[in-house]
Amino acid sequence: MQSPQPLFEAVRKTTFIEAPRLAKRLGVNLTIASETFQHTGSFKFRAAYNLASKIEPSRILTASSGNFGQAMAYACQLLGKSCIVVMPQTSAQVKIDAVREYGGVVDLIDVRVKGRAVRVDELAQEHPDAFVASPYDDLLVIEGNASLGAELAAQNFDFVIAPVGGGGLTAGLIKGLRDAGSATKVIGAEPLMANDAARSLREGRLMINELEPQTIADGARTVSLGHHNWAILQEGLADIVEVPEENIKEGMRLLYSFANLKAEPTGALSIGALLTAREKFAEAAVCCVISGGNVDAEVYRTILADN
Amino acid sequence: MQSPQPLFEAVRKTTFIEAPRLAKRLGVNLTIASETFQHTGSFKFRAAYNLASKIEPSRILTASSGNFGQAMAYACQLLGKSCIVVMPQTSAQVKIDAVREYGGVVDLIDVRVKGRAVRVDELAQEHPDAFVASPYDDLLVIEGNASLGAELAAQNFDFVIAPVGGGGLTAGLIKGLRDAGSATKVIGAEPLMANDAARSLREGRLMINELEPQTIADGARTVSLGHHNWAILQEGLADIVEVPEENIKEGMRLLYSFANLKAEPTGALSIGALLTAREKFAEAAVCCVISGGNVDAEVYRTILADN
Repeated sequence: MQSPQPLFEAVRKTTFIEAPRLAKRLGVNLTIASETFQHTGSFKFRAAYNLASKIEPSRILTASSGNFGQAMAYACQLLGKSCIVVMPQTSAQVKIDAVREYGGVVDLIDVRVKGRAVRVDELAQEHPDAFVASPYDDLLVIEGNASLGAELAAQNFDFVIAPVGGGGLTAGLIKGLRDAGSATKVIGAEPLMANDAARSLREGRLMINELEPQTIADGARTVSLGHHNWAILQEGLADIVEVPEENIKEGMRLLYSFANLKAEPTGALSIGALLTAREKFAEAAVCCVISGGNVDAEVYRTILADN
Repeated sequence: MQSPQPLFEAVRKTTFIEAPRLAKRLGVNLTIASETFQHTGSFKFRAAYNLASKIEPSRILTASSGNFGQAMAYACQLLGKSCIVVMPQTSAQVKIDAVREYGGVVDLIDVRVKGRAVRVDELAQEHPDAFVASPYDDLLVIEGNASLGAELAAQNFDFVIAPVGGGGLTAGLIKGLRDAGSATKVIGAEPLMANDAARSLREGRLMINELEPQTIADGARTVSLGHHNWAILQEGLADIVEVPEENIKEGMRLLYSFANLKAEPTGALSIGALLTAREKFAEAAVCCVISGGNVDAEVYRTILADN
């Protein structure tokens, strides 16, 4: 077997966008780092490729109704591996189609009858050779996402703001920036209605939501931070901004109008954080990470109209 | 006065986007070259900056209800020049606001009372020192747009497909590619209902529409090619594809769904051309230029829903 392409060659470099009219409205010196044109449309490819390329097993199991499933399917396709993605029957057809087009096997479940974790366990028994991949709580995931931090390190931003769900992205950013010798502060942008990470930082211990909060930012509907991520974020995260739903939507509209950028709700959390805590960042050099762009047309249309 | 920043430093490099799922649907080896993140959101900045930086006068007059006005206003702001943009009173408020935010003076006219050209002439009499700038029919415009051709030359595409309105972009692409020694064929993508350029190529002489055709591709609502552009296109353009309105809209939807790219209707003409003349490009290495992304939310919402 030939050795896989190294991560820094396999990923697309992030897309830097200047948006002076948006910067003026937000009162900061703004740079957008967009992962919407990353392979499969979100930063998740960085983690998926790094993990799939560095483990021995040639079969990977994961549960994802969102971006990690697509990313892992495509990474496995590139690496000649196989991938099974457990998804709820109720997932949007476009997301199921995407995983299949990237070569993944979709395993649909009725979540009223059987939970995702249970089904993953069943599949793991059927395929004892397979690796069960967490979308966020894994050192290889963090290392993959660190490649984005490394790209941002050269620019000496005061702040990098990025969404927090399971914490894999922000943990990776901290690692990538610090490994490159950068002191840029990393700020988490978390939906107010899914604020387990903010509460964890305040309490000094890992807090867990009882249910998946139904924020519009579907990439941040996690019940808690991953343990590996918490260990990094507890020390390394400068702050978390809790973003109301309305500011997430307004972030999407501002990116549409003043940056020509299609962002998914989770992707707009960083702009939403600037809207929510304007005074914390006044006049600073701020990089907003737009983590992904995969949003259904119907959802997008509704949000564009909703102002 | 310090000498202005050279063009190649002032422009943002084009954004190359890979979209394998879209490529598969279109049956080509596809690269997208997006100018939607160019300064002011369209390729027009290349022309505007080149012109404004190379002429002596410090005041520029132009008539534009679209992208050239914004581009010229911003170019003049960067160069410490002043700019008056004649716009119809009926222009979208967001476009008027954009010109003003970039430092331009907006001169609103009631087109039922006075034509744009008449008003530009009046203003030219008031400001005899001013330069009257054409958005497309000027050698400095072509030279500015050639900077995009130069960027594309290195990749040895079989075809570059770009929209045709006044012909400034395609003429610039031909010049930029040829100056760099590239033999890549340049294909024009023109709205079928505004097909004066296609008819001109067939007839071998410059054809003129009687009225501005009301295609949804508002950047291509020109009554004819510019004379400078015709001289280049007559010899240099490999072909023109006449794109029905429905394929322009479908191009926008495909870019939304499979490239995460917000394109304006004129910007989606190149994808529309692939939908219209699929057999001409089968399996070829094709670069589609997405010329701009500035589209009103309401128009965009309607097109996304319309399938």
